[in-house]
Amino acid sequence: MHFRVGILGATGAVGQTFVRLLHDHPWFEIAALAASDRSAGKPYRTAASWQSGTPIPESVAEQTVHPTEPGALAGCDFVFSGLSSSVAGDVEADFARAGFPVISNAKNYRMQADVPLLIPEVNADHSVLIEEQDWGGDGFVVTNPNCSTVGLVCALRPLVGAFAPEAVQVTMLQAISGAGYPGVPSLDIMGNVIPHISGEEDKLTREPKKILGTVRDGRIDEADLAVSAQCNRVPVRDGHTACVSVRFADAVGPDAVREALQDYRSPLTAEDLPSVPDTFLHVFDEPDAPQPQRHVHAGGGMTVSVGRIQPCPVNDVKFVVLSHNTVRGAAGGAILNAEQLAREGYIRSRTETPASA
Amino acid sequence: MHFRVGILGATGAVGQTFVRLLHDHPWFEIAALAASDRSAGKPYRTAASWQSGTPIPESVAEQTVHPTEPGALAGCDFVFSGLSSSVAGDVEADFARAGFPVISNAKNYRMQADVPLLIPEVNADHSVLIEEQDWGGDGFVVTNPNCSTVGLVCALRPLVGAFAPEAVQVTMLQAISGAGYPGVPSLDIMGNVIPHISGEEDKLTREPKKILGTVRDGRIDEADLAVSAQCNRVPVRDGHTACVSVRFADAVGPDAVREALQDYRSPLTAEDLPSVPDTFLHVFDEPDAPQPQRHVHAGGGMTVSVGRIQPCPVNDVKFVVLSHNTVRGAAGGAILNAEQLAREGYIRSRTETPASA
Amino acid sequence: MHFRVGILGATGAVGQTFVRLLHDHPWFEIAALAASDRSAGKPYRTAASWQSGTPIPESVAEQTVHPTEPGALAGCDFVFSGLSSSVAGDVEADFARAGFPVISNAKNYRMQADVPLLIPEVNADHSVLIEEQDWGGDGFVVTNPNCSTVGLVCALRPLVGAFAPEAVQVTMLQAISGAGYPGVPSLDIMGNVIPHISGEEDKLTREPKKILGTVRDGRIDEADLAVSAQCNRVPVRDGHTACVSVRFADAVGPDAVREALQDYRSPLTAEDLPSVPDTFLHVFDEPDAPQPQRHVHAGGGMTVSVGRIQPCPVNDVKFVVLSHNTVRGAAGGAILNAEQLAREGYIRSRTETPASA
Amino acid sequence: MHFRVGILGATGAVGQTFVRLLHDHPWFEIAALAASDRSAGKPYRTAASWQSGTPIPESVAEQTVHPTEPGALAGCDFVFSGLSSSVAGDVEADFARAGFPVISNAKNYRMQADVPLLIPEVNADHSVLIEEQDWGGDGFVVTNPNCSTVGLVCALRPLVGAFAPEAVQVTMLQAISGAGYPGVPSLDIMGNVIPHISGEEDKLTREPKKILGTVRDGRIDEADLAVSAQCNRVPVRDGHTACVSVRFADAVGPDAVREALQDYRSPLTAEDLPSVPDTFLHVFDEPDAPQPQRHVHAGGGMTVSVGRIQPCPVNDVKFVVLSHNTVRGAAGGAILNAEQLAREGYIRSRTETPASA
Repeated sequence: MHFRVGILGATGAVGQTFVRLLHDHPWFEIAALAASDRSAGKPYRTAASWQSGTPIPESVAEQTVHPTEPGALAGCDFVFSGLSSSVAGDVEADFARAGFPVISNAKNYRMQADVPLLIPEVNADHSVLIEEQDWGGDGFVVTNPNCSTVGLVCALRPLVGAFAPEAVQVTMLQAISGAGYPGVPSLDIMGNVIPHISGEEDKLTREPKKILGTVRDGRIDEADLAVSAQCNRVPVRDGHTACVSVRFADAVGPDAVREALQDYRSPLTAEDLPSVPDTFLHVFDEPDAPQPQRHVHAGGGMTVSVGRIQPCPVNDVKFVVLSHNTVRGAAGGAILNAEQLAREGYIRSRTETPASA
Repeated sequence: MHFRVGILGATGAVGQTFVRLLHDHPWFEIAALAASDRSAGKPYRTAASWQSGTPIPESVAEQTVHPTEPGALAGCDFVFSGLSSSVAGDVEADFARAGFPVISNAKNYRMQADVPLLIPEVNADHSVLIEEQDWGGDGFVVTNPNCSTVGLVCALRPLVGAFAPEAVQVTMLQAISGAGYPGVPSLDIMGNVIPHISGEEDKLTREPKKILGTVRDGRIDEADLAVSAQCNRVPVRDGHTACVSVRFADAVGPDAVREALQDYRSPLTAEDLPSVPDTFLHVFDEPDAPQPQRHVHAGGGMTVSVGRIQPCPVNDVKFVVLSHNTVRGAAGGAILNAEQLAREGYIRSRTETPASA
Repeated sequence: MHFRVGILGATGAVGQTFVRLLHDHPWFEIAALAASDRSAGKPYRTAASWQSGTPIPESVAEQTVHPTEPGALAGCDFVFSGLSSSVAGDVEADFARAGFPVISNAKNYRMQADVPLLIPEVNADHSVLIEEQDWGGDGFVVTNPNCSTVGLVCALRPLVGAFAPEAVQVTMLQAISGAGYPGVPSLDIMGNVIPHISGEEDKLTREPKKILGTVRDGRIDEADLAVSAQCNRVPVRDGHTACVSVRFADAVGPDAVREALQDYRSPLTAEDLPSVPDTFLHVFDEPDAPQPQRHVHAGGGMTVSVGRIQPCPVNDVKFVVLSHNTVRGAAGGAILNAEQLAREGYIRSRTETPASA
Repeated sequence: MHFRVGILGATGAVGQTFVRLLHDHPWFEIAALAASDRSAGKPYRTAASWQSGTPIPESVAEQTVHPTEPGALAGCDFVFSGLSSSVAGDVEADFARAGFPVISNAKNYRMQADVPLLIPEVNADHSVLIEEQDWGGDGFVVTNPNCSTVGLVCALRPLVGAFAPEAVQVTMLQAISGAGYPGVPSLDIMGNVIPHISGEEDKLTREPKKILGTVRDGRIDEADLAVSAQCNRVPVRDGHTACVSVRFADAVGPDAVREALQDYRSPLTAEDLPSVPDTFLHVFDEPDAPQPQRHVHAGGGMTVSVGRIQPCPVNDVKFVVLSHNTVRGAAGGAILNAEQLAREGYIRSRTETPASA
C-alpha cells in the first residue's frame, strides 16, 4: 500500500492538520501541497503560518506550494481537501472531473445523495455510493461529517444497532479550533460562551440521519431520528463536548446503554487500517469524565470518549460525549476514510500503473 | 425602612458579595460581620481575602469580625447567611431559635416543607410558609434557590402562567465563581470543560418543582414538571448559561414563547423594592445573545437574559438563558428576598422598637 | 462648557470606547459619528459590532453614521480620532486643515516635533506646541501616547521631578484589547504568551523621552532617559502590567520612590476636569498587587496603580505598574486631553459663536 | 544500566510527572511509589488524582502506595523526591541517612554548601560535592534548581563561557503548573496576572550564582553575577517565559550572543544519557518565538528555547527564554541528574550486588 497524495488548502488550519498527521503515514506520501495563488510558489514553511505545538515536519517544510489546479497535482493518486466551503464546491468538482478521488472535509457535497458521508466504523457500506457518481471518469468525492456531528454519531451507532433511538437532544460545547484560523477573536471568547455557531445546529439535525441511514439500491434511506441541537463556542482549544439525551422507542436504561457502548466492536481494527485507534469508544465510569483537557488525545485523537451515562427524567438516558474536532472530526477522519477506500480498492495507485507497464 | 443586618459567613465568596451589594443599600445597614473563629476579632479587611474587582467598601473595611453566635449579633434585626452547607444547618437553626429571621443562600433548608424557596418575582406568595415554621419564637428561615436553578425558573415562570410545560431538558454551562473561593483549581478548568458539578443536577430536578408549586393550606403542591439537567463547569468567571428545551402539553411554538417572556410583568417593580431591576427578563433577538461576557451585568446582575428562542425538533421550543450566579443566583437574590419580606412585615426592626417606646 | 464632538473611527474598538465614555459626559455631546464608507449611512447600532459588557448607549444607538469627511462633521467643535494608523495620517491632516482640533489616539503624529504627546497630569505645558502648528487655519492635532507608554510615564513622572532617573528597563504584559477588534486570534493567545507586539518596543523607547521632555522656545528638549522594553501579549482582557526597573543618577532606594509616588500631586484635580480621577497614582503595599482583574477599573480606569516597590540588585529600584489600556491608555486619555485643551481655550465652541452673535 | 527507583511524593503534581516520564524509561524502573499516610496502602490509581492529559501508565496504576519511610523502599537503588518543601527537609535527610541517594526537586537543600544544584549540561562537575556530604553512609542528596531558574541559567551558560556577564535583569511569566495541585485558584488567575510568587524572586537571585559557580577544593566559588527578578503568574498551563536583559563587562552585542548560544555544545549528547534532548538550546530567529503554546514541548520538554535576541538600550543584550517548568524545570531535570550520576557511578545498583555475588 503506497499512494502519493495531494493536499488542497494545505496552508489552512485543516490542511496543517493533514500535514501533521500524514508526514509519517505508512501508506500515504505527501506528494503535493496546494493552496491559493497567494501561497503558490512559496516554500510551505513560509506560506503556512504553522499553528501546531509540534514543529513543522522537515519532510514538507521546503516543499513548494502548488496552485490549486488538477494539472499541478498530476502526480498524485488522490487528494485530501481541507478547503473552506466558499471555494470547495467548484474546486473539488474540478478535481473529481479530472479523475481524482477527492477525500473532502468540506461541507459542500456532504448531503448530496450520491456522496458518502463516511465514518468507517459507523457506515463503511456507504462507500458503494461512489459507484453512483459520474464525473466523467474515475474521479469521485467522499466526505466526512461536520466536527460536531462525528462524536454524537459514533456514540449513537451502537445504540442504533441494539435499540431503537427515536429522538436525540444535544447541547454542544465546541472548541475554538473548530472555527479554523484566525477564527474566533480572543475578545469574543476568552472567559465567555457564545451560544451560536452559524449553520451548526442545522448540520447536527441533518447529517446523523444520513450517516445512520441504510443503503438500498444505490441510495440512502435516512434514519428516522429527530435530532435537536444547541451549539455553543467555549474557550477550549481542542475537543467538542456533547451533552446528549436520547429517547428510545422501547424502555432502555443507562445500564443497557453502557453495555451496548462498551461491547460495540467496530468492523475495523488497528490491524486493518493505520488510523484506526485501539479503542473506538472509551466508556468512563468516573463521575467527572470525559474532559477535553484530559481525554481529547485518547487514541491519538481518534478515540471517542463517553461518560456520565445516567437515567434522564425527560427522555430515557443521558450521557456526555467527547471527540477531537480537528482529528477524529476533520483531518483524521478524512485520512481514515482514505485508508478504508484504499483497502476497498476505490483509491488506486495511478502513478504506479505506468511504471509497471 | 431601615434595618440593621448581620452577615454570616461574611469573609467567604458569597459573604463578600453580600458586603459589596449591601454597603450602600438604602434600607439595610451592615451592623455586624460574622465569620469563623479563625477570623473573629480581626478587622474585616484583614480577615477577608477580598476578591472583587471593586475596592473593599470603606464602611466595612475596619469593622471587627464577630464570632458566629446569636449573642454576638444581638443588635441585628435579621441576618443573611452566606455560610457553606457544611455548617449552615446547625448555625441557621441556632439563629432562628434565637429569634432571628435568617435569609439564607445555603441549600440546607431549601427543600424543607415549611421553608420558602423564594424568588419574589416568581413565587412571592410562598412567604406565607413562614407562618408554619416554629423555632420557638419569632425566628424563621427563608432560602433562595441554587444559582443554577434561578435563571431557569425565572424564564419558566411566564410559560407556566401562559401554557402548560410538562418537561424541561437543560444543559448548564456554569461559571467558576459558583464554586466559591478557592473553588476550582486553575489546572482543572483553564481551557477545559468539567462535565460534573456535585449535587447540581439533582437540585435542578427538584427545586423548580417546589418554586413553581402552588401554596395551599400552608403547604406546597409541587408543580408537575419533569426536569433533566446536565451540569458543566466552563472557564467563565460570572454567569451561568442554560441551554433549555421545553415540551408543553399543548402545541406551543417559539413565537408564543417569545411573546409570553416579553410580555411578562413581574408583580414587583423597581419602585417597590430597591433590588428589583428595571427589566426582569430581557429577551434578545440577536442570533448570538445572551453571552456571559457581554450581558451578565444587565440590571446590576438581577436581570435574567433569554435568547435564541427556536423551535425544537424533539420537544417544542428551545432557548438559552443567562443569569448572574453570584448576584441574582446568590447574594442579590437573598437581598431581594429580604426586601420583599420587610415590605410584607415578616422582617421587623427589633432594635428600633424599644427606642421608639 | 459645552462642546459638540465628532468621533472618527467610531465603529472600531477605540471608537466604541469613546462612545461609552462620552455618552454621558458633562461637557462633550456626541454630535456626529463617522466611520468608513462601508458603515456610513447605517444606524450606529447596526454599523458597530458593539463589544462592551455594557449596553450600547441609547443616545447614540440610532444616530446615522457619517462618512469620514470634514464636510460631514461641520457641526462639530472638534473631533476625537480613534482611526487606525493606516488611515489616520491623511484623514487627521484633512480635518486639521479644515480647521478642526483633532484629538487623536493614533500614532501617526505622536513624534512630530510640533504635536503635543499629552498626558495632562504629566506634561500639560506641552500644549503650547499647538501654536507651532500651521494647518492653514485654526485646526491642530494633539495626541496621547501608546497604551503601553502611558502607565510607565505616569509612574516615572514623580521620579523625574524628585530624582534623576537615567535608565529604565520595562517588561510589558499587555492585554488583548490593546490590539483592537478582531485583534488577536484566540488560537494564538488562549493559554499562551506572545513575546512580540509589532512596533511596541520602539514606541516605549521613544515616547517617554518626548513626554518627559522640556518645552523650550516652542520645541521639546527630550529627556535624557534610556528605556529598554520587552513587550508580551498575555491572555488578559484589559490592563497592561509593566514590570519596571529604574537606575538613578544618585542612589535612590525603594522608600524614597514610594514616598515620591505617594506624595505626588498632579496639577489637576477632579474639580478641574471631569475625567481626572480622585487618585492619579495609587500605591499598593500588598505583596500581590496590582492585578489587572482586581485593580484595572480603579478611578474608572483613569487611576494608574503601582506596587511591589523593591530594591533592585541590578539597577536601583523596581516596581510594577498597572494601567487601563483602553481608558487611561487610549480613549479616556484622549478625552482628558480634550478637557484640558478646552479649559485652556485651545478648543472653542465654534457652533455657539454664530448662535450668540 | 538498570536501577530500581522509588518516588517520594508520588501522588502530587511533581510526583505524577516523575511517573509519566519514568514509566518507560530505559534505565530506571519504578519499584516503589511512596506518599503520605492518607494515600499509603491504596492503589496508585486511587490515591493519585491523575492530572495529565495522557492516561495513567498501566504499569503503575495498580501498584500499592507505600508509606514514606526508608524501610518501605528498601528494594530501591535510589529515590526521586517530589515532596513539598514543608516535609522534604526531614524526609530527605531520613532517606540519605538510610543510605539512599536522594535526587530531589525540593528547595530545602539547594543552597547547602555540599549539595550540588545540578544541571548536567551546565555544571556537571558540581557532582563532586557529593563526596563532601556525610550522612553516615552511602546516602547523599542532589538537587535541581527552581523551575524559574533553570531556563535562565541554561541560556546564560554559553554566555558565561564566552564572555563576562555582570548583571541580569529578568521578568518571569510563569505557568500555573509551577504551583502544583490544587495550586492557583481559577478565580485568581483566569484572565489575570499576579505579580507575585512567594520566594521566587529570591531564588532567582541566589541559585544562578551557585549553579554558575566554580568548584574548588570541594566547595563552590559563587559566580559574580547580579540577578534581579520580577516574577509573575500568568494564565498559561506549562512553560515559563523569561524576558532577560544582560550587561557584560565588555561590549557584547546580539550577534555575538546569538552565535554563542547557537554554537554551544553541551558536554552531553543523547547518546550518553536517555533524557538529553537532541538540542539543548534552540535559538529562534522568528520575531514572535518562543511561545509556551507552540514550543514548550520541544525536545520532550527538555530543550530550552531562546528568541528575540536584540540590543538593549539599557544593558547590552536582551532576549526571551522559554523552558518547560515541570519537565526541564522539575521532574525531567531530576531524572537527567540521576542519569548523569548513574553514569558517573555515584548511583549504584544496590539490589543487583547480592545477585551477582
